[in-house]
Amino acid sequence: MTNVAERRSQRREARRHTPVVQYGALINKLAPTEVVSAEGVELIHAASMRLLREHGILIVDYPAAAETFRKAGASVEWVDAEHLYPNGDTTKVCGHLVKIEEELLLQHLRHAPSEFTQLARNPARNMVIGGRHTVFAPVYGPPFVADYERGRRLATLEDFQNFAKLAYMAPQIHHNGGTLLEPNDVEVKERHLDMLLAHALYSDKCFMGSVTHRENARDTVLFSEILFGADNIRAQPATLSLINASSPLRFDDRMFGALEIYAHARQAILVTPFLIAGAMSPSTMAATLAQQNAEALFGICYAQILSPGVPVIYGSFLANIDMRSGAPCFGTPEDALALYAGAQMARRYKLPYRSGGNFTGSRIPDAQAGYESASTMWPTIQAGVNFVLHSAGWLEGGLIAGYEKFIIDLEMCGIMARYMNGIGLEEEDFAWDAYRDVPPGGHFLGAAHTMRHYDTAFYQHGVFNMDNYEKWEAEGSVDTYKRAHGIWKRMLHEYEAPPIDPAVRDALHDFVARRRADIRAGKLNRPD
Amino acid sequence: MTNVAERRSQRREARRHTPVVQYGALINKLAPTEVVSAEGVELIHAASMRLLREHGILIVDYPAAAETFRKAGASVEWVDAEHLYPNGDTTKVCGHLVKIEEELLLQHLRHAPSEFTQLARNPARNMVIGGRHTVFAPVYGPPFVADYERGRRLATLEDFQNFAKLAYMAPQIHHNGGTLLEPNDVEVKERHLDMLLAHALYSDKCFMGSVTHRENARDTVLFSEILFGADNIRAQPATLSLINASSPLRFDDRMFGALEIYAHARQAILVTPFLIAGAMSPSTMAATLAQQNAEALFGICYAQILSPGVPVIYGSFLANIDMRSGAPCFGTPEDALALYAGAQMARRYKLPYRSGGNFTGSRIPDAQAGYESASTMWPTIQAGVNFVLHSAGWLEGGLIAGYEKFIIDLEMCGIMARYMNGIGLEEEDFAWDAYRDVPPGGHFLGAAHTMRHYDTAFYQHGVFNMDNYEKWEAEGSVDTYKRAHGIWKRMLHEYEAPPIDPAVRDALHDFVARRRADIRAGKLNRPD
Repeated sequence: MTNVAERRSQRREARRHTPVVQYGALINKLAPTEVVSAEGVELIHAASMRLLREHGILIVDYPAAAETFRKAGASVEWVDAEHLYPNGDTTKVCGHLVKIEEELLLQHLRHAPSEFTQLARNPARNMVIGGRHTVFAPVYGPPFVADYERGRRLATLEDFQNFAKLAYMAPQIHHNGGTLLEPNDVEVKERHLDMLLAHALYSDKCFMGSVTHRENARDTVLFSEILFGADNIRAQPATLSLINASSPLRFDDRMFGALEIYAHARQAILVTPFLIAGAMSPSTMAATLAQQNAEALFGICYAQILSPGVPVIYGSFLANIDMRSGAPCFGTPEDALALYAGAQMARRYKLPYRSGGNFTGSRIPDAQAGYESASTMWPTIQAGVNFVLHSAGWLEGGLIAGYEKFIIDLEMCGIMARYMNGIGLEEEDFAWDAYRDVPPGGHFLGAAHTMRHYDTAFYQHGVFNMDNYEKWEAEGSVDTYKRAHGIWKRMLHEYEAPPIDPAVRDALHDFVARRRADIRAGKLNRPD
Repeated sequence: MTNVAERRSQRREARRHTPVVQYGALINKLAPTEVVSAEGVELIHAASMRLLREHGILIVDYPAAAETFRKAGASVEWVDAEHLYPNGDTTKVCGHLVKIEEELLLQHLRHAPSEFTQLARNPARNMVIGGRHTVFAPVYGPPFVADYERGRRLATLEDFQNFAKLAYMAPQIHHNGGTLLEPNDVEVKERHLDMLLAHALYSDKCFMGSVTHRENARDTVLFSEILFGADNIRAQPATLSLINASSPLRFDDRMFGALEIYAHARQAILVTPFLIAGAMSPSTMAATLAQQNAEALFGICYAQILSPGVPVIYGSFLANIDMRSGAPCFGTPEDALALYAGAQMARRYKLPYRSGGNFTGSRIPDAQAGYESASTMWPTIQAGVNFVLHSAGWLEGGLIAGYEKFIIDLEMCGIMARYMNGIGLEEEDFAWDAYRDVPPGGHFLGAAHTMRHYDTAFYQHGVFNMDNYEKWEAEGSVDTYKRAHGIWKRMLHEYEAPPIDPAVRDALHDFVARRRADIRAGKLNRPD
């Protein structure tokens, strides 16, 4: 072996033993900001109870779920009708309409834990979800990716793997998320397998399950049993899965089918109405909040009926349309208000809360993206959100997973992580010795107190840059977008996979290969 | 007259009678966010009282002010010494060291009003400052301007006039501010005259006075007497002026001289310690807040001793250094925490509060500028700041007044103005008729309730843009920076001055011409 090759090998070995840095779990020390009074919370609660009692929730294509509610004591009615809109349009309404009384609903909600721990394959990265904890997870769901050099394009499995690696490497990100983007170059029916594999092999953080079909949910559970052990995941959830309502006031077989699988397997369930106010909910925030509350609690109630005590999260995804163009808007004042009020509702029921992220309607990480993202993240943190999906990488209303946006959003996550520590008020924090060292009009740069706090006094920026104009111009007048480009490229270049037991890794590969073959042959993985 | 010329003249006439739109005065309906407990507020208060009692404030080159404090009962001591820093450096400390007891200080503070009205030349634009009111004013003080086409350059009087016009035209801006930028092409001694003239003639909103010399303060008062009437401005202030401490724990003759003129003329005084934590204050926020409190209250106390009941504002300008480079940082989590805590301190003394703005360390309005600006504006509004200087146009830590940044910041001001209205919880807001119109899974776009709220439901964006990628790309992939460029150019093109009594206008011009001649001849405008 030449000296050069030897040194290279030594460096590689050294790196292998350098664990990826992970900032600690976040505990928000600050009192949550509230935007409605205690009476306001009760008004929204009462309106949502009226929606559930008088209007009901339609369950589509899933008689089993309707039957579960009927047995639990809810009123269930079969509906098959044409609905006439005021403007003369018609639409078909078909399914089981479930109406539920407040008392019955709350009786089941009481079984839901106010916090729980999700297992990560690296136990140091297990995550508590609920209480005063905050967990950052990346963007979820975009069909496109974009970066500074190549612009926007359809996302691929390679992009998915890249985002899984970046999420693993990012110290600000606690949880690897789920459908980081759509791997469009993989058959729809097999995508969940490749996504699970990427999360399990390229990261050792928590991840999310597949919800696009009950079969996919089953695969997620079986996959997790191999990775964590079947008994372990019954004791504590190893997956967390996003169940969307098909708003307004409707759930379908796809989502409720997956929910059922996860509930029985004691895996954590995040129930989120997906609301663009003005379209899927009324244009007023009070009604939107009442509807969100009705839908979220209905889904959570279903999970608790099926499997009392299964970990759940009260989810909110709430934007509003631009009334002139119909486009969804992000980072708006209405959305921020609803985000805060949603947290107040979740606290009323002592449930962990999911909302917010680094949202923007912009297509690139420009100034608009910055203002809008920060205008969502401040409310996210100040509301005391427990699970922050879309913490990094979101562009164009969630249609694009942006490589540079991912990097820039990490800075915002870091800023917010620091913010929630609050202000120290110990004797040392009042710096009395500094005032002995420094005269009136003097400077504190060299004071012993300043030196003692040198490393920890202030948040240290990663991608934001405070150089003066002259230095900045001399170095090429680089904006944040371009600066972030180099960072993710370097991260991927330096990426090394976390260690894994080869036997487990092989078993995961075997499972995926077998299931892929089954799917191609049209076989179910277990009798239904 | 040709038809074309006639029509053009008619259009011009029509425009003349179209008043510039001004969004209403802002009243924050939301409870302020707090980051320290009531006990924490008392700890900071106690520490600041200890600073004032044991360390004192040095008054430099202004024996008259020291004498005022001595007569009021404070302890005053002449100091002329070398201070030895722990690292061996030395610095000269020379002036009157004033130490004041809590009881004496608070006794004078009690005279300060908790809110007041500043007169504007258009009475519809008078501004209440204090209580739950929020007033937006533009950037203050940059030596440079920048725009998308020409980059950064030294600011000129023409730039000043442009910013005064933009501030007048911007519906989100309530107050024309003061030193919008430094008109470097005008002699330093005469600048205040040209700035006063620009505010008075190009706008009809409130404006700020000059503080760079007591003579300039006097000119501001005399100028305002012509514009508003001498009796009127004694009854209610027509100017508001920014008095900075020369931190730490020091005031000089320049600022205290101007303060004295304004106090005697019953003009509003904004006392702001200018603190970059780690340099002008310790690196811990508790000490920085205590020092800020000591300095602000000391200045306010001086104003109240001189002229009991004169309107004052408790000011905070607080950033922190980057410990590695020494550069000032903006939009940091530490600054946000201190901004909130500062508001809690001001409320303790029932004083109007100034802080925040759209701060950034970035040199152009890129993503960093967006995140940082929003990360200051959210705390600004949620803290309940009453007077928001630097609401629009701030770049590079205040060294640059940015034309595009001004436009983009207006969007943020608009978003925050909307946010502080909170959530309506009336019967109509719960949209019961919409749930009759719309079936489960339907859409609310055409519901009568949606139509009733069409115009007012959601914030309407000005410069942010929600177009989808395809439309955006087809229109040239324009980012926010470039989009804002066209907007300010169009505004200046469409600008028309607000009407003014020609006699008043001529009197202002005469005053400025006479004073300019006096200044060039070295004459004071009144015996000192």
